[in-house]
Parts: sequence; structure tokens; C-alpha cells
Amino acid sequence: MKGFEHLDLDRDHRRTLQTQLTEQLKVMVQQGELRPAERLPSTRALADELRISRNTVVAAYEQLESEGYLQAHERSAFTVGAAARAFARPRQGDAKPGQRVVGPPRTLIAPRPFRPAQPDIHLFSLKTWNRHRTRVLREALLLQYQSRFSMGLDVLRQNVGAYLQESRGIRCYWDEIVITGGSQQALFMVGQLLLDSGSSVYMEDPGFPGAIRAWQQTGATIVPAPVDEEGICLPLPMAEQAKVVYATPSHQFPLGVCMSLARRLELLRVARERELWVVEDDYDSEFRYNSAPQPSLQSLDEHRRVIYVGSFSKTLFPGLRLGYMVLPPQLVERFARLKATLEDHGPLIDQATLASFLESGAFDSHLRRCRRIYRERQQLFLDLVSRKGLPLRFPVTGRGMNLAGHFVMETDDARVGAALEREGVDTPALSSYCSQARCSGLLFGLTAFTDAEIRMGIEMLANTLVRSVEHKRGR
Amino acid sequence: MKGFEHLDLDRDHRRTLQTQLTEQLKVMVQQGELRPAERLPSTRALADELRISRNTVVAAYEQLESEGYLQAHERSAFTVGAAARAFARPRQGDAKPGQRVVGPPRTLIAPRPFRPAQPDIHLFSLKTWNRHRTRVLREALLLQYQSRFSMGLDVLRQNVGAYLQESRGIRCYWDEIVITGGSQQALFMVGQLLLDSGSSVYMEDPGFPGAIRAWQQTGATIVPAPVDEEGICLPLPMAEQAKVVYATPSHQFPLGVCMSLARRLELLRVARERELWVVEDDYDSEFRYNSAPQPSLQSLDEHRRVIYVGSFSKTLFPGLRLGYMVLPPQLVERFARLKATLEDHGPLIDQATLASFLESGAFDSHLRRCRRIYRERQQLFLDLVSRKGLPLRFPVTGRGMNLAGHFVMETDDARVGAALEREGVDTPALSSYCSQARCSGLLFGLTAFTDAEIRMGIEMLANTLVRSVEHKRGR
Repeated sequence: MKGFEHLDLDRDHRRTLQTQLTEQLKVMVQQGELRPAERLPSTRALADELRISRNTVVAAYEQLESEGYLQAHERSAFTVGAAARAFARPRQGDAKPGQRVVGPPRTLIAPRPFRPAQPDIHLFSLKTWNRHRTRVLREALLLQYQSRFSMGLDVLRQNVGAYLQESRGIRCYWDEIVITGGSQQALFMVGQLLLDSGSSVYMEDPGFPGAIRAWQQTGATIVPAPVDEEGICLPLPMAEQAKVVYATPSHQFPLGVCMSLARRLELLRVARERELWVVEDDYDSEFRYNSAPQPSLQSLDEHRRVIYVGSFSKTLFPGLRLGYMVLPPQLVERFARLKATLEDHGPLIDQATLASFLESGAFDSHLRRCRRIYRERQQLFLDLVSRKGLPLRFPVTGRGMNLAGHFVMETDDARVGAALEREGVDTPALSSYCSQARCSGLLFGLTAFTDAEIRMGIEMLANTLVRSVEHKRGR
Repeated sequence: MKGFEHLDLDRDHRRTLQTQLTEQLKVMVQQGELRPAERLPSTRALADELRISRNTVVAAYEQLESEGYLQAHERSAFTVGAAARAFARPRQGDAKPGQRVVGPPRTLIAPRPFRPAQPDIHLFSLKTWNRHRTRVLREALLLQYQSRFSMGLDVLRQNVGAYLQESRGIRCYWDEIVITGGSQQALFMVGQLLLDSGSSVYMEDPGFPGAIRAWQQTGATIVPAPVDEEGICLPLPMAEQAKVVYATPSHQFPLGVCMSLARRLELLRVARERELWVVEDDYDSEFRYNSAPQPSLQSLDEHRRVIYVGSFSKTLFPGLRLGYMVLPPQLVERFARLKATLEDHGPLIDQATLASFLESGAFDSHLRRCRRIYRERQQLFLDLVSRKGLPLRFPVTGRGMNLAGHFVMETDDARVGAALEREGVDTPALSSYCSQARCSGLLFGLTAFTDAEIRMGIEMLANTLVRSVEHKRGR
């Protein structure tokens, strides 16, 4: 029986014989092996051929008829439906659609020293977190649609507001807070609403690549703004179409400088006069080891031009993907509409768990513990650097997750960074964060690594630096 | 001592006296109660005034000096720093910043009969889900940044691919699958990448409001396309700038019709010729009660013009917020870039849990159970409707989460819908989904409600309908 002997039904297969037969006949039609109006074997003949029950064949034929693949005629004869005429030839090699995969799945990777901005997830107590999760899950409605909470669960927004007021002097009403999918989503939303191809944004140079991606997505012009010891410097005259200024006042990324009070007030004055929105990305201000943190820019802003952005990715764990934004009141409505369009509401169980975690004080004690350990790691790193006499200066220390190390002599930091990467040391070149600015150094993240890993990293670092210096002399 | 007697330090407060004093002095400077260059009381005098240790005052003054609020002089005299000159007056009523809240937090709400598209979350076994979650959490790296998985965890993409191939005949490689924050995020991304203010999109009329929001966000022109018994009808001549067609072929939202094979092939032909992208939103095709589901539009598409969109919000639970998109190969790169810009990577623990849940077969059995119970609820509803002789026809039954009921006589469905809402029955008017189309009826969701709730809902429905008919006669 032409063609049909190729039909291949597997009795051990999870799917019924009928399903298998239906699908294989369908493929024969789609691939033109069965032509329109062509008559199919009688149900009895095909059943005999395939050694299956006739009912299975009847059921398969009827299913295919209901889908328009076959036409039924008197005396239970079936022909291929006219609609089948429209089927194109299959794509190359698609005879067995979907059964091939593109390589094996990739596995999760652990950060290598000294990858920046990686919290130590082993310091986080999943046990405590899960206890809060179990508690909040007594409320089954967390599982249901709750579209009116597209800005985040109110109880979480209130707890975040209380935390920010206490820790960062943030002044806002809780309903000016949006819970976001990490701070990256917050930056994306800012770009979507405040920028377009006709406008421009001032971006710290060097600066945070995630923010640059968000601005690029909007087609806006990105105006690099230099960074000195006091923080971002707005180039004058200002661009006509300037709408947004992006800054990291507490701990500039990647250089680490803290914006001076004078510069902060100047920035706020300009923002008010030029009606600019200032994005204050406070990505790691929780980690301040010596003195109390500088108050946030938002806390100094009497005219609500500041959009304050933060995240729990670094204070808790990145896999959580929860961040927040404190909005000026006049922007709340627009952001609410965008958030609802962007994803209805976010994952509610995590939000409720976090609210409970914050309220219990577990967050504060976790933060204290991380602060203590991160401080020690930064100190160890700096001790080893000076003991090894590495040719790097660290102008800003005592806070944050990362340290910017500047080469003391002229060095091609990209080349060194690449060499280190080959050795398994993950320290991005400072120049890789620059647009027009010129700096040469490496960015070190210390927080995710044990003392042993830090010592090992320093060894590899030292060897490679020595080699690249020799290589340089060699020229 | 002018002003300072108002200082109000609370010894039981969670914050230290020093912190409280620092912040309150700061507010005095910010609000101009302390003028630039004005001399502060000696540390001893203020300590006596406030009955606190002198060291506390010294520490507070030094903190404020380090932040630029105060200037230190010889013999530990302090004056207000010059920078303070720049402080503006405080906002109205902001004397106690951030301490007020805007109303109490809102609570979660349960859907009322017959709210459409609500799964019954009580059918879902959180116990099973949490067992898988505990298992995958043995891999601590789930907590860390995993930015290369912005399209979703590979293992989840593979399991979703296998499920879609088996259940919907989807033909793709697993790396053409994106895991999204619910299907709403998938629609938003489609709009962002494929539409702009210069282009237009064909939208089913009546159609899904969430999709309309996504298209509006892009500024594109939305061209309403009528829906008949065979599905969407593309108006001819086609709009010049048409880029996208949005359709729900398996179970049109809200009317419920299933697109005929002929219409599907016609749509694919037009898409190929006009180089349109077809968004196939397969939002509830898993719930098919009588016959096997129609194969997906994507499975018939030989030219990869279809973007297939689905979600686990309805098959598992909405609070999970996980959906997916199957992309044509030529779009994968652009979507990957957008996804990374939009939120780096999504919540990884839920993704890993879902992958394990799918692989174990728990998903299939949950789906079978829901299908059985949802079928019974739909049947009960229809029985009660006909027993009550309600003036509604239900042309499409036997599948999906919702039923579109059309009024048999001319009726103002918006008015009836509003009247029902006042009675606590949540059945949107069909006309509320219409742009230019004209239809009059109500949309009923049956899935989330027990038999008792369905009976009660029908009672209220019957009463209100009778009343509105009388009210009509009365006129």
C-alpha cells in the first residue's frame, strides 16, 4: 500500500496509537505525499496493514476530517481535502519537525574572582526566606490574578518606603513606589516614558552599561558627561533636547566616587531650571563600611525631579529579580499604565515574601552581616594588593561592592583584562565602561569571594601583571 | 535655646539618638530654621538641653560636617555650612517627610462569578510545586546573576518546546523559545520590536484588551478586523503599513470561534505575501473538552511568519507570571537583545521549578484534572441557563475558560452588565470588547467557580435579566 507501509506506530509511546496515526497522516498531507482528492485506503485495509484496530483508523480519519484534512464520502470512503492544496513544501530538513534541538542546554555558572557586583549568595538564609514564604502562602489569593497590583503589592511598597526613609532619607508616599523586575526594568521604563529619538540623555562617562542599553533602546541621543572627584559634570551649554540625567551619586559606577553635596545641589538646581529628570541609581549604597552613608539625592530634592532606583538583587539575591523605583508624583500615573501594559502584575509570591522578610527585621540583620563580611574582604584585598606591590592605586575605598583600581603607569587595560580573563580572573577593564573618557585600570568585585578565592585571585593577578609589564618592556 | 527645644529624641526608637539628632538637625538646615553661617550651640550646651551625652552631640555634628551641612571651627565651634544656602523651602506639609501614607494598603481580591479567564487556584497542588522547588534549590547558583539566560533557563525552554510540540504540534528549535513575564510581556515585546507610530496592526474586533494596550503603547495604527464564524477577516485592501496581525485562532477572544483550516491557510498565505507577522495568542487552547484541539496556526506555517504566544497563568496559576513565545528564527536575536534590556533575566527559581514540574509529568496530570472539572462546570452552567430559559444563546461551547452569551433579543448589554455588577455578578458586556463591531451579550468565565457559586450566580443573573427586560417593557 503505497506510502502507508512507512507509517510507524509505537505501542510503548506515551501517545495513543490514534494520535500517532493522525499526526503522521497529517504530515503526509502537509508534505504532499498525499495529494488533494487522492483517495485513502479503506479503514479496514489500513487497520490490517498496520495491525491495529479498525476503530483507531476510523477515529483518526474522523479527527482529520473535522480539521479539514480529509473529506468523507458515502460508504465511509475518505479523500484528501481540497484545502490541502494550499500546503507548501516543508522547510529543508523539517521532515521530523521540532524533534531536533540546537545543542545541549547551557548550565548555570558561578562568578569567578573578581567579577564585579556579585553578592555572596551563600550568606543568604534561604531557610529564613522560605519560612516567610510559607507564612504568606496561607493567603491562596496570591496565586490568583491581582491586576490592580501592577505597581507591586501595597504592603511591599509600604515596607520598601519605610526602609528607604530610614536608610536613605527618601521622602515619598508609598504609592509613589513601583516594584520592578530588578533595577534594569526600572531603567527600561524610564527610557520608554521619558526618552525618544528626538531627545537626549546625560550619561555618566564612564558609566553603567545596563543603563546605556536602556537609553539605546529608545533611540535617544546619549550625551557622555565626565566624572571627576565630586561626581558627574554636566557639559555646558546643555543639549537642547536634554530630558534625563543618569547618575550614581552614592558610589559612582565604576569609579566609586561619592558626589559632593555642592555638586548634588548644583545638579538639582539645573534639573529644576531645565526641567530635567534625574535618575539616581543607588545600586549598592547599602554597603558603606566606615561612616554612615551620604543621604540620597532624592532626600535633598525639594522639587521632585529625582527618580530614585534601587534593587534587592545585591542586598538579597539576584535570582529574586525585585527592584524598585521612587517616582515624582506627576509621573506615577504614566508609569502605572506602562507597568500594566508591560506585564500586568509581577510575581506576587516573591513580593509578599519580601514584604514579610522586610517587616520581620530579617533584612536588616542580613544586611549587617553582609556589610561586616564584605568590609573584611575589601580590607583583605587591599592588604594583599599593597603587600604584593601591585601597580594599582585605589583612590576610593571603604564602601560598595566593587573597587576601581587605576594603573600607576600607562597600561593597555583592555589587553591586561583579556590576559587575566584567559587566566580565569574576571576583572573588566575600566576603559570598557568609557565612551569619550580616558581611564586605564581594572574593576574588582570582592563581595562574592572567600578569603581563599581572593588570595588565589591576587596570585594570578600578580603573575599576569608582571608578565604584561615585562612584555611591555620587551617591546 | 531658640529652636532646639523642639528637637524630639525618642529613647525607645529603633534608631540611635545620634541618628535621630543628625536627621533632625539636617531638617532644620534644609528648612531654613538654621541659616547659613549661623552658629550652633556648643556640644555641651545642646547635650545639657537635650539631656543626652555630649559624645552623641559631637558625633552628630561631625557626621553633619562630613556631609557638608556644618563647618567646624577652632575650639570645636560649629556653624551652618555655606552649601546650605542652596536649600529651597520644603514642600507643603512635608515637615515630617515620608511619615504619612496615602490610605491603607489594598487587600487581595477573589474573583466573583462569572469573571472570565480565572483558573481555579484551589485545584493546584502547591505541595507538589514546592517539592519541585525544594529539589531545584539544591542548586544555589539559581540565586546568582545568570545574565546569559535572559531568554529563560535553557532547560525550561526545552521542556516548554517538548510540551508545545506534543500538545500543539509546534515546530521549532528550543532556542527559538523565549520565557516571558506572562503572555502580556510577550505582546509588549512584539509591539516594541515590530510596530511604531508609522506602522499598523490588524486586531481582532472584538478582541483582547491586553493586546490593544500593547499596540497603543507603540503609537501604531490599530486596524479593527471583523470576526465571523471562521475567525478573523482581513479587510481588503490591506493597509499600506500593515506589519502585524493579532489573532486567537484556537478560541477567539471573546467570541470563542475556532478559525477554520481554510481561513488559517489564507491568513498564512497573506502573511507570506505581505510579509506580515502573525501573532497567534493561544491563551486557553489547553481547555478543549470534546474533541482533540485544532493544531496551532504555527504548526501549519511553512514560512515562519507566526509568533506563537502562550502562558502558564491559566494552566498553573496567574501569580506565577510565566509565559512564553515561539519566535521565527530571524527574530530571535532582536528579541534576545530587548529581553536583556527589559529585565536582564527573569526570576530563576520559578523557572527551574516549572521546568522540573513539566518534566515530572505533574503538569499533564494537573491539566487533565482541570480539563475534567472545567468541562463539568461549563456543562452545569449551560444546563442551568437552559433550565432557567435565560434569553441568551451560546453558539460556541465545549472548549475554553469562557463562554460568550449573545442576547436573543436586542439588549443594551453595557447597561445589563453594569446592573449585574451592582448585584455582585462580574460578567463584562461583549460590546466592551468591540471597536467598530456590534455585538450584544455577556462574557462568562466558569472555571474558577464551584457548582454552588455557579448556581448562585445564575440566580442573580436570572433576576437581573428579568428586571432589565421588564424595565425595557416599562419604557
